[in-house]
Amino acid sequence: MTPRESSGTGCTSEADPPRIHIHDPTLRDGHHAVRHRLGREQLRGYAAAADAAGIPVVEVGHGNGLGASSLQVGRAALSDASMLEAVREALTTSRMGVFLLPGWGTSSDLRQAIALGADVVRVGTHCTEGDLAERHLDFLRDAEVEAHAVLLMSHMAAPERLAEECLRLVGFGASAVGIFDSSGHYLPPDVSERVAAITAAVDVPVIFHAHNNLGMAVANSVAAVRAGARIIDGCARGFGAGAGNAQLEVVVPVLERLGYATGVDLYRLLDAADFAERELMPAPPTIDSVAVVSGLSGVFSGFKTRVLDIAGREGVDPRDVFFELGRRQAVAGQEDLIVEVAEELRRSSGPPSTPVAAVPGGAP
Amino acid sequence: MTPRESSGTGCTSEADPPRIHIHDPTLRDGHHAVRHRLGREQLRGYAAAADAAGIPVVEVGHGNGLGASSLQVGRAALSDASMLEAVREALTTSRMGVFLLPGWGTSSDLRQAIALGADVVRVGTHCTEGDLAERHLDFLRDAEVEAHAVLLMSHMAAPERLAEECLRLVGFGASAVGIFDSSGHYLPPDVSERVAAITAAVDVPVIFHAHNNLGMAVANSVAAVRAGARIIDGCARGFGAGAGNAQLEVVVPVLERLGYATGVDLYRLLDAADFAERELMPAPPTIDSVAVVSGLSGVFSGFKTRVLDIAGREGVDPRDVFFELGRRQAVAGQEDLIVEVAEELRRSSGPPSTPVAAVPGGAP
Repeated sequence: MTPRESSGTGCTSEADPPRIHIHDPTLRDGHHAVRHRLGREQLRGYAAAADAAGIPVVEVGHGNGLGASSLQVGRAALSDASMLEAVREALTTSRMGVFLLPGWGTSSDLRQAIALGADVVRVGTHCTEGDLAERHLDFLRDAEVEAHAVLLMSHMAAPERLAEECLRLVGFGASAVGIFDSSGHYLPPDVSERVAAITAAVDVPVIFHAHNNLGMAVANSVAAVRAGARIIDGCARGFGAGAGNAQLEVVVPVLERLGYATGVDLYRLLDAADFAERELMPAPPTIDSVAVVSGLSGVFSGFKTRVLDIAGREGVDPRDVFFELGRRQAVAGQEDLIVEVAEELRRSSGPPSTPVAAVPGGAP
Repeated sequence: MTPRESSGTGCTSEADPPRIHIHDPTLRDGHHAVRHRLGREQLRGYAAAADAAGIPVVEVGHGNGLGASSLQVGRAALSDASMLEAVREALTTSRMGVFLLPGWGTSSDLRQAIALGADVVRVGTHCTEGDLAERHLDFLRDAEVEAHAVLLMSHMAAPERLAEECLRLVGFGASAVGIFDSSGHYLPPDVSERVAAITAAVDVPVIFHAHNNLGMAVANSVAAVRAGARIIDGCARGFGAGAGNAQLEVVVPVLERLGYATGVDLYRLLDAADFAERELMPAPPTIDSVAVVSGLSGVFSGFKTRVLDIAGREGVDPRDVFFELGRRQAVAGQEDLIVEVAEELRRSSGPPSTPVAAVPGGAP
């Protein structure tokens, strides 16, 4: 296979094409789209299909990770243990991944996950709060697992800051580090500069995880690889929060066509995606108007329901609410801001002047 | 608005950002997704919404253009005249566009469309058969309309060949020329080199029309603009054949964020897209496995139903059929090849060896 890039730093004419490690959070991020209600047969069936395709890591769990099943963010259909057992017994060569957000998941959740066969553990924090991962990464040092650390809502920090955080995470013991585009805000140049800064700062594999709010999930994943990322996330049919993730069965052949090796079998991968569409989701994610506004404003699409409700009550345009929340750099946990913003907009009555251009945090 | 590209040739710090002319074929290409069955109120409603958003050109008609309604490619719900009348009466500032494929449409169809108020007429041919547009472009020289000429399935020709064809089309009288990625095969570098070659060859605006089979419709449209294209097609929610087109309400704010001016109002555009999702389509297009294979193999997704039927009958993998059709450079009208290929695959029994890599025509 010949590299076909017109230019690019990530892919040259060396004999062995760069290897890209595909990480598949279909059974974790996809959970957001179905209120964390996947059952045992769904998990087992998809895990077996991904395993047959040669997907290196199959991540499973509640959308918000280990220990997160709750009234506040949604009760999962199964316990963490049941989910892990279902996937573990379906895997023959793929490794099993889990996700943990400090505050939701604890060390005892991690201990249980490892006992149940988790091979890859990802600890996620807000992009400027990598310190919160220290205790968990420290705990993982002595475990026989691969420890990843990832920065969420990463468009809210400058490239240099992300590189510093990643370097700190490597110091805590992370064997791979990287960034999530949680609100699907990035365009490819944004990804290139951030991943390049991180790649220059650390000597471990760099991770990139896309969302598709601006239709750029695949292009952003390619930009990340060209800038040096070597672990790329993708979900079958894009199954994930809001507009969905990078579509796994698209990003894999696109990377292969550009000369990168994934080791994934295309036909079996398409079979896995067909299974996912048929058995896991009511319909594949699409980019609706709220998703576009969420991506442009840099606000996590998980705010959608509350923004629509509150804007309706206050008689203001929910799009104005999103853009104002973006200006105020709202993040998950700050849902109280929605009421404040909506009330202010009602009182001031006029919409903000330049909705598209004035997005904070996205530009360097 | 400040250009936010890290680099790029198409967008610099000049005072006036480059103007991109948005061309909206929702009511023409979208027709492919609903068997050409849009009714008068649907056409009128969407046209009014697009007009309110400031979309420069609203294209309408049977998916295959003027005069194409037929048993062979599908009977439209309305006559060409009824479709044009419905859209015409809804437009106040947007101009009305029509599409014509020589062989389906005739000069008398053109004459009628112009009499009914068509402002922009597009003549499309296979990418190496621009000569077929000569007669129609000649006819349009004396009409008070803007005449575009576009090359379909353009991945099947090298950049230089496309540039030659476009130069010839300008000679025939086209006031804008460009390329369609009819099977959604391109990755951004493919678009860049082709549009750059055409832009260098002609002195009229260059057109780019994407399909989303490989998740690259928006990224490819951006690549086209950076390489010099100035007329970009987009459909509401991507409504179009197969995996759909560049999603209009995504590509517009993305271009704006990159510093290009479209003159389109974002909120009214999102309203138009919401109308389209609610009133025109059963569901927005998604990228299914056939669409991925169609994009990779460079075969028009209109082959889907027949490939699935015939492959099922012969007991062969429809994906193998697509890749072999791609190798043989099959184009619309060559549906007989499907039977031939499927029978050969059944006899030889083994699947082709390198499905992803060996795509003809796509690589320079």
